[in-house]
Amino acid sequence: MYSINETIVALATPPGEGAIGVIRLSGKEAIAITDRIFKGKKLSEQPSHTIHFGRIVDRSEADPRIVDEVVVSLYRGPRSYTGEDVVEISCHGSNYILEEVVSLCTREGAMIAKPGEFTQRAFLNGRMDLTQAEAVADLIASQSSAAHSAAMHNLRGGFSTDLKAIREELIKFSALIELELDFSQEDVEFADRTQLYNLLDHAIRHIGELLASFRLGNAIKNGIKVAIIGKPNAGKSTLLNALLNEERAIVSDIAGTTRDTIEETLNINGVLFRLIDTAGIRSHSADAIENIGMERSKKAMAAADLVICLFDVAADKEEVEAQLAEVAAAGPAWVAVGNKTDAFGIEAAEEKFSSLPAENLIFISAREKENIDALREFLFRAATGGTLQTEGTIITNSRHHAALKQVLQSLLDTRAAMDNGLPGDLVSLDIRRSLHFLGEITGEITTEDKLDYIFSKFCIGK
Amino acid sequence: MYSINETIVALATPPGEGAIGVIRLSGKEAIAITDRIFKGKKLSEQPSHTIHFGRIVDRSEADPRIVDEVVVSLYRGPRSYTGEDVVEISCHGSNYILEEVVSLCTREGAMIAKPGEFTQRAFLNGRMDLTQAEAVADLIASQSSAAHSAAMHNLRGGFSTDLKAIREELIKFSALIELELDFSQEDVEFADRTQLYNLLDHAIRHIGELLASFRLGNAIKNGIKVAIIGKPNAGKSTLLNALLNEERAIVSDIAGTTRDTIEETLNINGVLFRLIDTAGIRSHSADAIENIGMERSKKAMAAADLVICLFDVAADKEEVEAQLAEVAAAGPAWVAVGNKTDAFGIEAAEEKFSSLPAENLIFISAREKENIDALREFLFRAATGGTLQTEGTIITNSRHHAALKQVLQSLLDTRAAMDNGLPGDLVSLDIRRSLHFLGEITGEITTEDKLDYIFSKFCIGK
Repeated sequence: MYSINETIVALATPPGEGAIGVIRLSGKEAIAITDRIFKGKKLSEQPSHTIHFGRIVDRSEADPRIVDEVVVSLYRGPRSYTGEDVVEISCHGSNYILEEVVSLCTREGAMIAKPGEFTQRAFLNGRMDLTQAEAVADLIASQSSAAHSAAMHNLRGGFSTDLKAIREELIKFSALIELELDFSQEDVEFADRTQLYNLLDHAIRHIGELLASFRLGNAIKNGIKVAIIGKPNAGKSTLLNALLNEERAIVSDIAGTTRDTIEETLNINGVLFRLIDTAGIRSHSADAIENIGMERSKKAMAAADLVICLFDVAADKEEVEAQLAEVAAAGPAWVAVGNKTDAFGIEAAEEKFSSLPAENLIFISAREKENIDALREFLFRAATGGTLQTEGTIITNSRHHAALKQVLQSLLDTRAAMDNGLPGDLVSLDIRRSLHFLGEITGEITTEDKLDYIFSKFCIGK
Repeated sequence: MYSINETIVALATPPGEGAIGVIRLSGKEAIAITDRIFKGKKLSEQPSHTIHFGRIVDRSEADPRIVDEVVVSLYRGPRSYTGEDVVEISCHGSNYILEEVVSLCTREGAMIAKPGEFTQRAFLNGRMDLTQAEAVADLIASQSSAAHSAAMHNLRGGFSTDLKAIREELIKFSALIELELDFSQEDVEFADRTQLYNLLDHAIRHIGELLASFRLGNAIKNGIKVAIIGKPNAGKSTLLNALLNEERAIVSDIAGTTRDTIEETLNINGVLFRLIDTAGIRSHSADAIENIGMERSKKAMAAADLVICLFDVAADKEEVEAQLAEVAAAGPAWVAVGNKTDAFGIEAAEEKFSSLPAENLIFISAREKENIDALREFLFRAATGGTLQTEGTIITNSRHHAALKQVLQSLLDTRAAMDNGLPGDLVSLDIRRSLHFLGEITGEITTEDKLDYIFSKFCIGK
């Protein structure tokens, strides 16, 4: 059972050795608990938003042991992240020390915070709605400018504003319908039906746009898994190099980050394209992947969000068509890329392959780096369904997407009910259902279990 | 060339995702630079030791982009870690954001800090001497209570106090000798020779104690590598379990720490004993290590600081003696542990092996966990040469050890010079030499190269 009466504590910085590590406490006893392990000024007498140098001491021992020299930051509720009293203790970044300090805090009565519990408290104390709380986790996980922008937009209440607008329209609609309801015995239509339809249509359109942004949002959040397939000597490794050479490194160069463990990535318009199974392409046998045969290509295709079918424009036309048909049948989004136009001529290639669907086709020369920028834009469009939205809300969270789909369905049901001339109380019921699902997104309507589930995916200390 | 006029910036928390990440700036422009990328209160007008909520914005773009919502801590020099103006920016713990913020700072004129540069500045600005600066790095690296205590003692100036006492004695000595020198034409001995000898002997004894603590200090800092060797069925895996079962876990349980990558460790009196090659002992064939034969045992012995020679007290006496002779010849510190006293009787064992050196011998029953505590103390003594000092300075740094040896040699030379009745100016020269080496330890006498070398071993951001 969740108790907001407890004071919680956790390491707020990533584990590992560093110059400093920060331990965060939140709750009614945060300052009192810190005072009991702190030697310096009496913190309970200090104003909010001040910093105090001192020592963390273990007073349980006969000769009080100094655990660390620290700096303590004080935030008095409600002017804090959680809305409660918050203390941050900046220690030397040794795991040994950090663990000792956390353990002293728990000995003095603090509970170890569950993942996301600080943010959960911020939500429960009305410091943010659920979409903003979820944006905190997205922001921390953001690895590209697009993911960062989308999360920052939501953290700053962008999505909440959209939902609020829709909600107000629906409440207005509902009020009008219910007014009619009150007089239903008299068989009068008070509500202007055209106005009702307009309100409904506007909300449906708005939700439709939000839902449509999810394809891009999902790409932004999770990246696009791309497989490059093609016959031997189609030029896959050359293409890979051409694409990667123009890549701007986005992963932190700060010592110790995971640069070398991630797969090769392209960053197009701030969206990460994760190139899968490039090890084979990269290996000394440039086209090693083909040697292993179609089996491996099929596996790569199955795992991909987007398949690049690379072919030599000098290749046999029927063979290329057959290969593309196979890929198209397999299911994932795909683009056909005709390579080696430098030798063949771009117009000749266009003419030769005019039977292929133009919207899925681009010609390049990987070796001469011709049309590579266009290819990048082409890949972006193919994967996200459009150009990058830089303004407005992008749905990146599948929970939001699922709930919005429910909202939309309820609104469509509402319209159908109106079309069929159903009585106002039934129409009203559908509207209430859509308001319910809207409330689920922002967290106005939720259950403890659902909250626990959402916050369990946060990191500890947030 | 090192320039203290530059303002430096670095990530101060470990890299990786976390609730928060802290970026630290230090230097004359630290506050001005932050003001240029911060949207909130004007920081240059805020008092020291205050905290301000606001946003980091990239104003270079037409539509100023919000990089993060942050909390900024202000420290005005000299009341800061480095003695200069220091700003700490607490961001959301995303590598993307942290890198963006660091890069904004550098665009506004900050330089990326070199490893240890913040602490180096603290030293150069007289906030700490070199032994204290080195203790910062030791504190961060500390993994056990003993390492932590030794580093904390030095951070708080414990070692500096020792050195200061020695220095004062030598300066007093020097003053007396030089007084004599001024009147050397008159062949008068002003200085009381007994007093001179007393000062010298006291300093020599004090340095001797410090030097003697290095064996323990080295064990504390680096841990003791222990190899367990013995014939099949001597009971090595049982011994290992008996030792480890009683171990108090000291490595952080905080998610993501390196728990599973380190070898198996024992913590005795706060000193880490690292058991090497335990994989062989742990493997399903309990005594796998022997099966591989003496070759592997020899390798393990060569890498070990301490070798545990385990034997069955029922084994052939000559064979045990031969084995121990071999280990003793190999060089590392060793202890002989007679196992299975439960079946044999401890007195019978003592009588049977009375030919072995008693100070290196202990009898246990690993299976019955008899004498295991005594074995732990025995291992501790064998490895560190004594019981754990909890008070006073322990030399853990080989640079300090080397310099102290030079000081000691100079003092011994001084005494020899006095013994041989050498003139006061020569005696004085030896004393000056020892003062020079003392100054090297605290950093009063040092070169830029030497400093750079010392601080290059720090982590970035410290």
